[in-house]
Amino acid sequence: MNTLQSISYPIYFSNTLNELANFVEQGNYSRFFVLTDENTGKHCLPLLRQHIDKLDNFDVIEINAGEESKNIDFCVGVWKMLIDFGADRQSLLINLGGGVISDLGGFAASTFKRGIDFVHVPTTLLSQVDASVGGKTGIDLDNIKNIIGTFTQPKAVFIEHDFLRTLPARQILSGLAEMLKHGLIADASYWNKLKFSDLENPSAELVHRSVEIKNDVVIEDPHEKGIRKSLNYGHTIGHAIETYSLVHDENPLTHGEAIAAGMICEAKLSVMKTGLSEAELDEITEVINGLYPKYKIDEKSYPTLYSIMQKDKKNQSGKINSSLLTKIGHCRIDNICTEDEIYEALRYYAEI
Amino acid sequence: MNTLQSISYPIYFSNTLNELANFVEQGNYSRFFVLTDENTGKHCLPLLRQHIDKLDNFDVIEINAGEESKNIDFCVGVWKMLIDFGADRQSLLINLGGGVISDLGGFAASTFKRGIDFVHVPTTLLSQVDASVGGKTGIDLDNIKNIIGTFTQPKAVFIEHDFLRTLPARQILSGLAEMLKHGLIADASYWNKLKFSDLENPSAELVHRSVEIKNDVVIEDPHEKGIRKSLNYGHTIGHAIETYSLVHDENPLTHGEAIAAGMICEAKLSVMKTGLSEAELDEITEVINGLYPKYKIDEKSYPTLYSIMQKDKKNQSGKINSSLLTKIGHCRIDNICTEDEIYEALRYYAEI
Repeated sequence: MNTLQSISYPIYFSNTLNELANFVEQGNYSRFFVLTDENTGKHCLPLLRQHIDKLDNFDVIEINAGEESKNIDFCVGVWKMLIDFGADRQSLLINLGGGVISDLGGFAASTFKRGIDFVHVPTTLLSQVDASVGGKTGIDLDNIKNIIGTFTQPKAVFIEHDFLRTLPARQILSGLAEMLKHGLIADASYWNKLKFSDLENPSAELVHRSVEIKNDVVIEDPHEKGIRKSLNYGHTIGHAIETYSLVHDENPLTHGEAIAAGMICEAKLSVMKTGLSEAELDEITEVINGLYPKYKIDEKSYPTLYSIMQKDKKNQSGKINSSLLTKIGHCRIDNICTEDEIYEALRYYAEI
Repeated sequence: MNTLQSISYPIYFSNTLNELANFVEQGNYSRFFVLTDENTGKHCLPLLRQHIDKLDNFDVIEINAGEESKNIDFCVGVWKMLIDFGADRQSLLINLGGGVISDLGGFAASTFKRGIDFVHVPTTLLSQVDASVGGKTGIDLDNIKNIIGTFTQPKAVFIEHDFLRTLPARQILSGLAEMLKHGLIADASYWNKLKFSDLENPSAELVHRSVEIKNDVVIEDPHEKGIRKSLNYGHTIGHAIETYSLVHDENPLTHGEAIAAGMICEAKLSVMKTGLSEAELDEITEVINGLYPKYKIDEKSYPTLYSIMQKDKKNQSGKINSSLLTKIGHCRIDNICTEDEIYEALRYYAEI
């Protein structure tokens, strides 16, 4: 599969660990650091070591797996370890893991000594099709996702399909939600292809097409002034559900599970506001509902969800701004939704 | 005095508070925040309020004065207040204060929601001639100055000479060190002019010329890949002395006092390594020594100073890289100094 070119860096899909070894050996780096969590440290790091064994200067920084680690305390921990290990400005940070690793590692690297180089080696489907491409780095604060961060591009991204083989089914489904989104906002034929694919094991070709769709959007609008907002489809309500679940549930929703619910809600909003047909709403609801467990939200919690949405960095002056579908494969950005409209969409989801 | 144009923003010197009022009223901002410390909150904020009283949406975030505030805890405090005040991406942060305010405020703004706009209103001589121009933001960590930060340009800088009138003499001297440095590295006639000026009350014209010199350098090399390193003259040893003093002294050196000592040491290094004449060394030593108190460093502390230098973000692989003078008004970057050479320079300073 062909290498994609992003804003200022390549995204490799074939022979990726050798490409990484080449990158590491040819770059003018003084030191190498790998950021992992306990899962990728165990399952993926040994493979990296095999491929880039020529390195003599290779320190590992490991954090706890999970969204709870994506905060300023862990970021300070990464900075302090970089200091203790003697990292200088010519150091490279290799982010080996899911979205938490790439978001946190990207943020830590983009601010350490005013910026050192970093690359992503995404190991989950979600991070392969979403977090690793686009130059967004970030951490959470006060339970607000990605509220602190930078726009900083990695120097390269290495997407190794083999890493997905060790993933539990729930993690695959989490990434799949973003792939479905890519079809819905930008490519109806890709959406149709997904519907009839083995979605428990998405092929490397499907992953490649998803990354290509996302990459085309972020190249056109790296700082999310316009068209990039289309990637937020499902995320206005979905992010709020995710945050709500993180606070209230012992076993919180994955990102994809929350976005799946958000996409159904926002398909309903799309019927109400941007001309999506009822038939398409039914189709979207049926496909997503067939894949993801239903999340129960009591109507009493709607105001809590709404106030989380108001704090979302995408919104201005407390108004809820969402990206909605005009039809499958087409998205319109900057739709202001009222509190009542949001509640109606949540009610639609509750009643399916 | 004419407005200077920096990389992507203007630096105003005349009628500055009215210029700020214009900027605030003409910009497309939803909300305004002013970052102050208890000194600028008391002495400078009332003036701002007088000039931009048309604002109805004006929240103040106050931190403690002093370098001790320039850390991640205060930064998290600023982020949380921005969240609590409901700051969105169209908000503007006005940094009203010295270098701590502009460095910390710039960092907090450049990372909040992946970057909101900020302007600097520097209120000390040091921040007027140094921190406010050049797009470096930063905080300290583990007693390492500016180890965490970004390169992010402000949207404008407003240099109001009247603010200097309330400054104690020691604060004026702190800024003066950077002005002397500007002459030494780039403009011998400016250095000569400074020698015969009233340096306890530097004129607005002298301040303007200093900013102009710094601005010319940073425009040429915003990310400090080359010529911008010349601004580090005096800072290799000076920063280490500053950090050392911050940890060891009850009443630590100001930045300028430390840089003054650093410039004498590095003038000695310049004789040893880059051809500065003994006569020029004597002249530099005499001028600086006549203005600044002598700082005593016991020879037993030299290894501590050296290890602080090794952690400085300017250095690679533990080697000490300094910017030295070839003659007054001319600087050469990228001179690797050995431990022995550093000690010899420190000894020279100790014996004057």
